[in-house]
Amino acid sequence: MPELRKDPISERWVIISTERAQRPSDFSLPSVSEEAEAVKGCPFCGGNEGKTPPEITAWRKEGTKPNTPGWDVRIVQNKFPALSSVGDVNRTGMGVFDMMSGIGAHEVIIETPKHNLNIPDMSDEHVEKILWAYKQRISDLEKDNRFRYTLVFKNYGKVAGASLSHPHSQLIATPITPRYVKLELSNARTYFLEKERCIFCDIIRQELGSGQRVVFENEYFVAFTPFASRFPFEIWIVPRRHEFGFQILPDEERLLLAQCLKDILMRLKKCLNDPPYNYVLHTAPNPIPRPGKPDYWGTIQYDFHWHIEIIPRLTKMAGFEWGSGLYINPTSPEEAAKYLREVKV
Amino acid sequence: MPELRKDPISERWVIISTERAQRPSDFSLPSVSEEAEAVKGCPFCGGNEGKTPPEITAWRKEGTKPNTPGWDVRIVQNKFPALSSVGDVNRTGMGVFDMMSGIGAHEVIIETPKHNLNIPDMSDEHVEKILWAYKQRISDLEKDNRFRYTLVFKNYGKVAGASLSHPHSQLIATPITPRYVKLELSNARTYFLEKERCIFCDIIRQELGSGQRVVFENEYFVAFTPFASRFPFEIWIVPRRHEFGFQILPDEERLLLAQCLKDILMRLKKCLNDPPYNYVLHTAPNPIPRPGKPDYWGTIQYDFHWHIEIIPRLTKMAGFEWGSGLYINPTSPEEAAKYLREVKV
Repeated sequence: MPELRKDPISERWVIISTERAQRPSDFSLPSVSEEAEAVKGCPFCGGNEGKTPPEITAWRKEGTKPNTPGWDVRIVQNKFPALSSVGDVNRTGMGVFDMMSGIGAHEVIIETPKHNLNIPDMSDEHVEKILWAYKQRISDLEKDNRFRYTLVFKNYGKVAGASLSHPHSQLIATPITPRYVKLELSNARTYFLEKERCIFCDIIRQELGSGQRVVFENEYFVAFTPFASRFPFEIWIVPRRHEFGFQILPDEERLLLAQCLKDILMRLKKCLNDPPYNYVLHTAPNPIPRPGKPDYWGTIQYDFHWHIEIIPRLTKMAGFEWGSGLYINPTSPEEAAKYLREVKV
Repeated sequence: MPELRKDPISERWVIISTERAQRPSDFSLPSVSEEAEAVKGCPFCGGNEGKTPPEITAWRKEGTKPNTPGWDVRIVQNKFPALSSVGDVNRTGMGVFDMMSGIGAHEVIIETPKHNLNIPDMSDEHVEKILWAYKQRISDLEKDNRFRYTLVFKNYGKVAGASLSHPHSQLIATPITPRYVKLELSNARTYFLEKERCIFCDIIRQELGSGQRVVFENEYFVAFTPFASRFPFEIWIVPRRHEFGFQILPDEERLLLAQCLKDILMRLKKCLNDPPYNYVLHTAPNPIPRPGKPDYWGTIQYDFHWHIEIIPRLTKMAGFEWGSGLYINPTSPEEAAKYLREVKV
């Protein structure tokens, strides 16, 4: 019997359709490793620094200069940005419609100078530098009064929207808080006001208690397949302790997050033959800063709980999902967690 | 300069990214016509009625029997239904989580006995029979107290999720009102309570006034590219007159809807080289019926305005869209409408 399940954070219902149950080998996507692409001329490779827009920041060896080799992780503007970084917000109404200028930041985090080195094959310390880069950019962009939010995301593989195969993540800062984040924020607040507890903390407690959907845990982090997973093998990584902002994560915890992220991506790779995936980082939105008063408007949302959502791209969105916002997931999260736990890493 | 635009019905923001502007020829998907597939053995072809689950209803020649040839449009249960049609809803809580049994209906509307005849090449009268089938099934399923909503949708082409190329639509009836429909319903109600006017009617007036985004109109219907289109060449078909329910559409109007739908799908086909697409029908949710009292609970939502949303599948969803719910659309709706109007049909 299929089940309808509701995600308490987004209040999204999902159909877990056991009639169409699918094991890892039933998904027949080509493996991302097979996406051959010439390394020659890749603008993200070490030595080709001149082929990208200028460097915003980088983790580099002491004494090396911007836009030259010597970096481990490097951040540049996206060459074809979806939003423009100059100008004002200009909120406008046109009859029944609202609009504003498309200002924002659109940056690329080049994860390594090496063309074929992906997170599962990096050292924990290198993965930590990528996470450091996320933190640096979010912290920097939240000082820009025009922006309400910075969303960090990764597209891995063509099916997941990557146009270059060189390992990279991206971020987009926007003058509005994106819809899905807003939904999580407002539901987390409602829950907190009612219960004086964080909804994420409650879920983590319940997940750790049952263990059914837990895939990995270390001292600070836990990774699990959510109860109302929208997609087969969807995985969330959350800090065990209540923390609203990724960007204020202490350095020693970031290394444990790197370990967790690497472990999970390795399990996905081995379990599903290197599938395409996306991940997104949901942190609390930008406060509106004023000199000496970081929380001037009381805008820091302490009742949020940051997390990373990982979405393997194994199924297609069809008319029903587009029209309803209701997902049909052919693999139960309990089954998915079992397969992922069984992977030897 | 890119623009951020807000759809007043769903309150969804969209990025119209002119830096990445794309004309029809820039989308390089294979044409659906090239998806060769053997006709032989197709369960939806005329003569193969025994290969599908039993017929639920059909538009047939007088004197012909169910599950035999002689039909123009035929409705059967989906062979691999996402939801089960037997059983009760069984709403259950599990700690912080909610769930219910996955009951529902999942049916296939086979649009013609001919394997290669798609809507643009059918007669208006035949297209009207498909719409009649939608109406029949929605009206019938809304009598089932377990179901809150029936969503009719079509997947055209593999990229859009079609697993068989024989022309067909589908419907899924669910024990909840799907999230996107709920959002439209609640915003339409809020707007009506504030202004005593339908938000769709206001938009239609504004669209017809400016004409910039109008693609087609006849006496009863108008098709336009929405101001905050999520996708390139997204098109909505709406009745000009305020009508909350597709299923109560008078017969003579249905023929004009058939004309409009056929015209629009023909324009899409010619303009974008037969692209994959989805369409969905959003009508008011089921009332809860009792003998002699069709609106027993006052549940008919008269302030809604039914419509069809057509989504060509020209771009990929990537991490940003998944993580934010904010779409990046590389073609402005004004440009898209211009290209579609220029098509000779």
